[in-house]
Amino acid sequence: MSHEKTYDLTWNQYGKAEVRVVHVDRSGPQHVVRDLNVTTGLRGDFEPAYTEGDNSRVLTTDAQKNTVFGLARETGVGEPEAFALAVARQLLSACPSADVARVVVEQYLWNPLSGGGGHAFSRAGSHVVVAELELNRDGAAELTGGVDELVVLKTTDSEYSGFLKERFTTLGETDERILATQVTARWRYAEGAAEGADHAAVKAGALEALLGAFAGHYSLALQQTLHAMGVAVLEACPELAEVTLTLPNKHHFLQDLSAYGLDNPNAVYHADDRPYGLIQGTITRR
Amino acid sequence: MSHEKTYDLTWNQYGKAEVRVVHVDRSGPQHVVRDLNVTTGLRGDFEPAYTEGDNSRVLTTDAQKNTVFGLARETGVGEPEAFALAVARQLLSACPSADVARVVVEQYLWNPLSGGGGHAFSRAGSHVVVAELELNRDGAAELTGGVDELVVLKTTDSEYSGFLKERFTTLGETDERILATQVTARWRYAEGAAEGADHAAVKAGALEALLGAFAGHYSLALQQTLHAMGVAVLEACPELAEVTLTLPNKHHFLQDLSAYGLDNPNAVYHADDRPYGLIQGTITRR
Amino acid sequence: MSHEKTYDLTWNQYGKAEVRVVHVDRSGPQHVVRDLNVTTGLRGDFEPAYTEGDNSRVLTTDAQKNTVFGLARETGVGEPEAFALAVARQLLSACPSADVARVVVEQYLWNPLSGGGGHAFSRAGSHVVVAELELNRDGAAELTGGVDELVVLKTTDSEYSGFLKERFTTLGETDERILATQVTARWRYAEGAAEGADHAAVKAGALEALLGAFAGHYSLALQQTLHAMGVAVLEACPELAEVTLTLPNKHHFLQDLSAYGLDNPNAVYHADDRPYGLIQGTITRR
Amino acid sequence: MSHEKTYDLTWNQYGKAEVRVVHVDRSGPQHVVRDLNVTTGLRGDFEPAYTEGDNSRVLTTDAQKNTVFGLARETGVGEPEAFALAVARQLLSACPSADVARVVVEQYLWNPLSGGGGHAFSRAGSHVVVAELELNRDGAAELTGGVDELVVLKTTDSEYSGFLKERFTTLGETDERILATQVTARWRYAEGAAEGADHAAVKAGALEALLGAFAGHYSLALQQTLHAMGVAVLEACPELAEVTLTLPNKHHFLQDLSAYGLDNPNAVYHADDRPYGLIQGTITRR
Repeated sequence: MSHEKTYDLTWNQYGKAEVRVVHVDRSGPQHVVRDLNVTTGLRGDFEPAYTEGDNSRVLTTDAQKNTVFGLARETGVGEPEAFALAVARQLLSACPSADVARVVVEQYLWNPLSGGGGHAFSRAGSHVVVAELELNRDGAAELTGGVDELVVLKTTDSEYSGFLKERFTTLGETDERILATQVTARWRYAEGAAEGADHAAVKAGALEALLGAFAGHYSLALQQTLHAMGVAVLEACPELAEVTLTLPNKHHFLQDLSAYGLDNPNAVYHADDRPYGLIQGTITRR
Repeated sequence: MSHEKTYDLTWNQYGKAEVRVVHVDRSGPQHVVRDLNVTTGLRGDFEPAYTEGDNSRVLTTDAQKNTVFGLARETGVGEPEAFALAVARQLLSACPSADVARVVVEQYLWNPLSGGGGHAFSRAGSHVVVAELELNRDGAAELTGGVDELVVLKTTDSEYSGFLKERFTTLGETDERILATQVTARWRYAEGAAEGADHAAVKAGALEALLGAFAGHYSLALQQTLHAMGVAVLEACPELAEVTLTLPNKHHFLQDLSAYGLDNPNAVYHADDRPYGLIQGTITRR
Repeated sequence: MSHEKTYDLTWNQYGKAEVRVVHVDRSGPQHVVRDLNVTTGLRGDFEPAYTEGDNSRVLTTDAQKNTVFGLARETGVGEPEAFALAVARQLLSACPSADVARVVVEQYLWNPLSGGGGHAFSRAGSHVVVAELELNRDGAAELTGGVDELVVLKTTDSEYSGFLKERFTTLGETDERILATQVTARWRYAEGAAEGADHAAVKAGALEALLGAFAGHYSLALQQTLHAMGVAVLEACPELAEVTLTLPNKHHFLQDLSAYGLDNPNAVYHADDRPYGLIQGTITRR
Repeated sequence: MSHEKTYDLTWNQYGKAEVRVVHVDRSGPQHVVRDLNVTTGLRGDFEPAYTEGDNSRVLTTDAQKNTVFGLARETGVGEPEAFALAVARQLLSACPSADVARVVVEQYLWNPLSGGGGHAFSRAGSHVVVAELELNRDGAAELTGGVDELVVLKTTDSEYSGFLKERFTTLGETDERILATQVTARWRYAEGAAEGADHAAVKAGALEALLGAFAGHYSLALQQTLHAMGVAVLEACPELAEVTLTLPNKHHFLQDLSAYGLDNPNAVYHADDRPYGLIQGTITRR
């Protein structure tokens, strides 16, 4: 076809998204539930599938799904980071045309219920823990952990002032506001630090650092809070090289009640939906 | 207009939905956050607004919103049940044409963060607590509490067999399955029992009863589990007359791994999205 | 168990929710796609399942799902109203303990793509068409049609004034505003009118009436617009006895630009999310 | 603080997300509605805000929101691409510390309703049109257009076979399947081609090319369909240098009805939710 001379496939990736695999370890009196949402992807020399519909090099997305379920049985499911690595290795082994396997695992957390005899649970919190792995055929791997939808709020120790003033700046300065956000964090392991790391401990440390910095920090700006949270993660976890945070500023506006004769001494707020500030940053260990 | 003779307005209700009011009580060292989503509605003699666009009897939905914010300041926000009653009384007082005021309050829960000095919080769980009040002008009130999105799972003590067999019944019987659901519950107070009730205690008791019954119950059917949960709520809370439960059966299917040579002794499951069983029932104190 | 003497199961319903069945009729050059989301429910004498876990009277929700798929093959899928009736009859036939079968069908609509040779389609609009049927064992049926998520907006011919004034009323009166809503409508057939009705024609007529009334109506209140839309449906469709409309007032607030020296002659609006007015009403043919 | 020596802020961006601005042009008999969701972001020398809470260089996100509303009035809103450029220029002008302004515009489309006198509308389709602009202080700009949530389906002319076989490959080959996807596309303008381009014509051409290629293409793999769609866009729009497509394979599985004695000659399908194939690729003009 003539367009092959005119157009190049300059990037490709394909896989199976959102395999909802749940593994139960019943070996002890306290059952262990691993409740995962796994997405796989392969990149490599798959151009014939795109240009000609020649699928001969393609490990089907259905087979990728089966790999997830099969390995959950064969290797068990421990920490998502280790499971992601097992899946990525198997995918590269099964598919010679793949250069890189990408595996993203979201984990939903469960708390044992008292009185449940070790086998009843309720959903733990609203947040989701994440592991993202990219494995190259040469063995190089990049591992990133993280958390989504971690919702936090503080009722004081937050002010906002001293900002640039120009024509469209009408915001008043305040030395007292509610600060609320829904944390999305991604922490990248230093080169070589992922293997042998205690991933459960890293996650626990990173989460504790995020919450501790948010709680203990006096905020002059959400940017500053972001920086403090990122630094806290890197200080708590020497295995990590870099943290990226995405923090929506979930505005809580002090409601003006004066039209019906009421004051409002930082008591009643309107939690607004949109628009919202969106503050992002990456902190890197030097 | 001639259609007035042909068509009747046989039901009407109008109000403001989803007023996101957040109240902070800063009077003690531990700040108290009430994070609510309030919906109001009025029913009554509003036909001229519908048939003629005559708004003279209409308390605007904007004023209903202001009432929510204003009362949050004037009366404070304690338990949502009491706040709903205060709002409903004010709405009926302000709007003579209304016969009934309906106020629904969803409450998002927050846990204090350690190290937060009494003023930092994270979202507590994924569930939402609800209060629904209908207040008549004659003073009669119906109060219903409840919970939404309470997600629970048990890894054993659940079987399913002995069901009707007919042409379309192909399901196998099992003596071991994962049972998972997302509880929606509504508990109605007995007549006269809402006033003077300790609503916080009722909610805590009802939630504990729901979770305890789910955890401790050996399930032969989700219907049976529903009944046990409803009975447990009524046994725990003498103030309540009736419980309605809506329980989706969030299917966890044992994944068939035999095609690639693996057994699956209740270890690896697929958490399916749709379709799902939907089991409902109302249990009433005699 | 003693609680059987104390507590009654006063209402029950169970079934399979959201069976995503897609039927393709390939008999003509233009393929016909019926893309449905079917929910079934049974009510009746199922108390032993709830109180004792005795499933012997229970047609499993899995079998209900199979019934939907099986009838889609056996009877084909024409109009959702007729398919719902076929499913309901089969469910009652298969399950002697059921008194009532409830079948709700949501239909996603597709438009043929030009150049697609009669077999390529794109999603038609954002709205969903609905049919709800309740069939009693004695043959009595209640059929309701409807539409969800029908989003409409008008840029003029809408004002709002003359409303009740009291302490919390601070809203200004306006003779020019944007009126926007997302229509949820349910139209109930008159007794005996469902059988033999041309359901496709009724739906087309009802939708055209809703849109025509919204477009052509000069609005003094969303209540009045609701009434006009409901009356238009009943005038267009003699088969229908009653229409219920739920209309959120999707507020478009004129943005105040005066702080940076700009006027705003009904040009720039903020489309707000929450809170929103919620106007409801039922219009019944006398 | 000592951590400044240990940790670097290696990337930052902040702005206001999801400003819901609606502009109405009432100058002609047919009103023109521009219904936008605008997100702004600035990158540059904002480190003091992150490390010290020094906001003196920060154009507040509130001012960014005001800029969107203010420019909508001052310059009007034509094509989103031009509006994004006006906003980006103003943001860079107002904020000397910013090196790059990023503006993303989502546009919701409306169709005039017949009988609406040029001022009543219904939502057009389920898809959203997108423009993404990054403007550097030196004047260099990268403009990308696109579409989200464009849902398409074909009932034939799709097969899948000839793929790699290995241990976990259990999928059967088929010469007849439903192919359905929800298109996310992004098309990048060639350097210098954005200025002076007829953006409305480019969008119309790209959308027509996407739909035409999907409809007219005989598919041996969704990868191949993706490639054909990307090439069609580049062929239709000489202004564009590159197209990236993200195509979930929205699986429609032929339902096995044999257990209750029915065949299924490509008639009845189950539209599954998760997992789904996810096929991605970038096609670049040489």
